[in-house]
Amino acid sequence: MTPDTLTSWKDGPAKRAILDFVTATTTEGGVGFVPASDRIASFDNDGTLWVEQPLPPQFDFVFRRWAEEVKADPSMAQEQPYKALLEKDMAFLEGVATQDPEVVGTLLKAFSRTWAGSTPAHFDSEVRDWLENVKQPTLGVPYIDLVYKPMLELLELLTANEFRVFVCSGGGRDFMRVFAEETWGIHKENVIGTAAEYTFADGRIVRAEHALGSLDVGPGKPEHIFAATGRLPLFAGGNADVDIEMLEAARFSLLVNHDDEAREFGYVKGAEKSLEKARDLGWTVVSMKDEWIAVFEKWPKT
Amino acid sequence: MTPDTLTSWKDGPAKRAILDFVTATTTEGGVGFVPASDRIASFDNDGTLWVEQPLPPQFDFVFRRWAEEVKADPSMAQEQPYKALLEKDMAFLEGVATQDPEVVGTLLKAFSRTWAGSTPAHFDSEVRDWLENVKQPTLGVPYIDLVYKPMLELLELLTANEFRVFVCSGGGRDFMRVFAEETWGIHKENVIGTAAEYTFADGRIVRAEHALGSLDVGPGKPEHIFAATGRLPLFAGGNADVDIEMLEAARFSLLVNHDDEAREFGYVKGAEKSLEKARDLGWTVVSMKDEWIAVFEKWPKT
Repeated sequence: MTPDTLTSWKDGPAKRAILDFVTATTTEGGVGFVPASDRIASFDNDGTLWVEQPLPPQFDFVFRRWAEEVKADPSMAQEQPYKALLEKDMAFLEGVATQDPEVVGTLLKAFSRTWAGSTPAHFDSEVRDWLENVKQPTLGVPYIDLVYKPMLELLELLTANEFRVFVCSGGGRDFMRVFAEETWGIHKENVIGTAAEYTFADGRIVRAEHALGSLDVGPGKPEHIFAATGRLPLFAGGNADVDIEMLEAARFSLLVNHDDEAREFGYVKGAEKSLEKARDLGWTVVSMKDEWIAVFEKWPKT
Repeated sequence: MTPDTLTSWKDGPAKRAILDFVTATTTEGGVGFVPASDRIASFDNDGTLWVEQPLPPQFDFVFRRWAEEVKADPSMAQEQPYKALLEKDMAFLEGVATQDPEVVGTLLKAFSRTWAGSTPAHFDSEVRDWLENVKQPTLGVPYIDLVYKPMLELLELLTANEFRVFVCSGGGRDFMRVFAEETWGIHKENVIGTAAEYTFADGRIVRAEHALGSLDVGPGKPEHIFAATGRLPLFAGGNADVDIEMLEAARFSLLVNHDDEAREFGYVKGAEKSLEKARDLGWTVVSMKDEWIAVFEKWPKT
């Protein structure tokens, strides 16, 4: 650990807990030592590594696509999830956070329908276009400028201490892979998420019309992490109820609390149970308001 | 590249082709330069990294389990694949190599049946027990002693040149992960293979009764590699017809030719089409007999 470790973190309980854990797990001969091969860290993305208000960025991306599809075929307006989208029925869409099977099934089907048969290169170009041209509606800057600076410092600290960092999000694996390397400094293979199956034919990869494995939320998170790495995480970071199982599976669990209405957003919705779990199980809760000196990596521009 | 690069390789066409490719892809400003992030290498396991005669080692492992199951429930003896196993019906079992859908389906179902509901720790201990106590029948040493020394040197060369090495085998991902780190020097997350889906409940991971995605042979290989890494391989190594699509997807394709009856085994069965493809597409074919100074890492003991 270098002297400039976690510079955007105040010297508070969260920073001290993180540094103590990293010191313990990397000190050979100490009681808390963990061999480097077992040092897996996994982080949720939406609300943990970047802003998720007023809605998770990938919803912004995909809702634009679905709006185009409904425009091309108005009969879709009566079907879910397109109906909920047109009617701004947020209660329906929030069914993802509560893992309502009907909502989840409907969304997975719609995702598949949108990209079935497309190539990764085509999908990548759509995501890049969105990253460059669409702005988060309340702050007025591209979503990619709204990555949390303190969390990037944490990823760097863990990597420097031979942790292998994975991002494990309910969001689309392939969506995140487009910007993972330049944004988080981790390779595409370290991005885990809800994913389409692929088929390889005529020398190229195209998306099949169904998802591979479970939706990467709730118990799906440790399932996906174990499938990808052969291990459960040693260190996990999240911010919402869909992260509970991943945080339970880890030895060090960090919960980002969105209590900074002035600099970001103030909300507990979707995190009620995880905040309760954090109290019961002694997870490290990060107060964005009290413990972060800066919030975003690229905004406001100084 | 250090002076002791590929010391078990004779100074022949294969060694020269490998070194030229690695030099070209890592020389900044050169026409063949490839950024480190795109340097994915993938290798088949059976017959490419270790011996696969008289049958792939994992078949030895699983056949012993199936024999126990039939002993416990003799009615299974009339069902496939148990029937083929008892009758030593190799023609049936070879249907895997030709990707016969009936055989593949039958085997996947039998694999799932054997391990459904078990924990990774339990499975790991079974594999470790087999690794330590079972011997390859013709050479009389544990299978794990029959890893090819020249291939380990190749993995090391690629890693030293910032390639990220993956093993991508039709065999079981979780089977290989037990010995990947100590044997190949790559982390478990770099092992790709046919895999069971997992469920996470009550704080632990158990195997579900179905496979995750396609069987990792033929087109399944590039599919699995792309799903795991977000890329197709830059460098691929294989030895059989089930590796064709992976080798076609790569820029540098290495085919191990089992022509060394004296030190290993002499056979083309299951590799007829890939040898033809190699000629047509200019893949680098390695003659074990002519180009390898040593064959095995740990045998014969010197």
